[in-house]
Amino acid sequence: MNLPSKILEQAVKQLATLPGVGKRSALRYALHLMKEDELAVRDLSEAILRLKTDLHRCRHCHNVSDTEVCPICSSEKRQRGIVCVVENVQDVMALENTQQYRGLYHVLGGVISPIDGIGVQDLEIASLIQRVETGTPYPVEEVVLALPTTMEGDTTNYYLSRQLRPFGVKVTTLARGVAVGDSLEYADEITLGRSIAHRIPFEG
Amino acid sequence: MNLPSKILEQAVKQLATLPGVGKRSALRYALHLMKEDELAVRDLSEAILRLKTDLHRCRHCHNVSDTEVCPICSSEKRQRGIVCVVENVQDVMALENTQQYRGLYHVLGGVISPIDGIGVQDLEIASLIQRVETGTPYPVEEVVLALPTTMEGDTTNYYLSRQLRPFGVKVTTLARGVAVGDSLEYADEITLGRSIAHRIPFEG
Repeated sequence: MNLPSKILEQAVKQLATLPGVGKRSALRYALHLMKEDELAVRDLSEAILRLKTDLHRCRHCHNVSDTEVCPICSSEKRQRGIVCVVENVQDVMALENTQQYRGLYHVLGGVISPIDGIGVQDLEIASLIQRVETGTPYPVEEVVLALPTTMEGDTTNYYLSRQLRPFGVKVTTLARGVAVGDSLEYADEITLGRSIAHRIPFEG
Repeated sequence: MNLPSKILEQAVKQLATLPGVGKRSALRYALHLMKEDELAVRDLSEAILRLKTDLHRCRHCHNVSDTEVCPICSSEKRQRGIVCVVENVQDVMALENTQQYRGLYHVLGGVISPIDGIGVQDLEIASLIQRVETGTPYPVEEVVLALPTTMEGDTTNYYLSRQLRPFGVKVTTLARGVAVGDSLEYADEITLGRSIAHRIPFEG
């Protein structure tokens, strides 16, 4: 693509670094922004920068937050003895949207993945162990492992369960099974197998 | 979507103003940017802002440019007597990529569209007429209308041809027909009709 301007070229190059955005989309964004009011573009530009300069990570659970301690960790209405370990911020949002979980979270920031060069020290694992070991900010009775069911997720689950064993904390994991509304016929074998193996009492 | 931070929410809202970007994609972009180096995010933020603050429109053809007069208008190798009228900057890029056109351009910035409230005064029409009338920066011998074949494009073509008539300039338009490589069987009737009506001498 032959762009008529270095400034446009630079903007396209930068916008194309966004996940899933190619050169063509980036150009469309840039040309759109060119036509917008300067004020609107300034707002976008600043909002992006503030993601790095003003956004905090909660000191306890490492979820994104505008304050040093996030609203979930500081809420007195949550069950502070339960900590749900998730891969990333999106997972917290997904679980919060269910309105079924009243405990706290711990955002690892990824899972152990040697092939991507992500080891234990790159994740918020030490801080999780410390939370359980020292009981700060609150004593932990149960750790719910809610990592993805991938090789990396399973590895991380295993590592965490081994690390947590000395502290005698209850370690649980999410129930996996056929999704609500899905027919058994089209469920994959592993999922259906888990559904039947971990069957639960019928609540009539 | 329940976001845990106002700053994140603001960034998502702003990113979702980009064309074709919904809340979900905007959130993905924002969470990606959060993980990036501050320097990279600053580069993106600045590149976006520079689209409004530093990018020029060429004084003659209104194409985007880093300079007051764009490289095409200032090139001595172009056929300065021919001006191709296009809707937007993307059209200039598309025509330049063909390497078949050696004349100059005139970017209207849209087409006449009463339903969208776009009238003659919202487009670079007066400046086109002036270019032809005064012969500045260069005398114009031919105006090539390359606007889209929509109702609005046709209306604009018609308006321009009427406005240009008094100056005795040659007015041409793009050849339309079945695309190279396409089979006649699947071409739409109007396109195929134009292809046969405007048939040209065979160059064996």
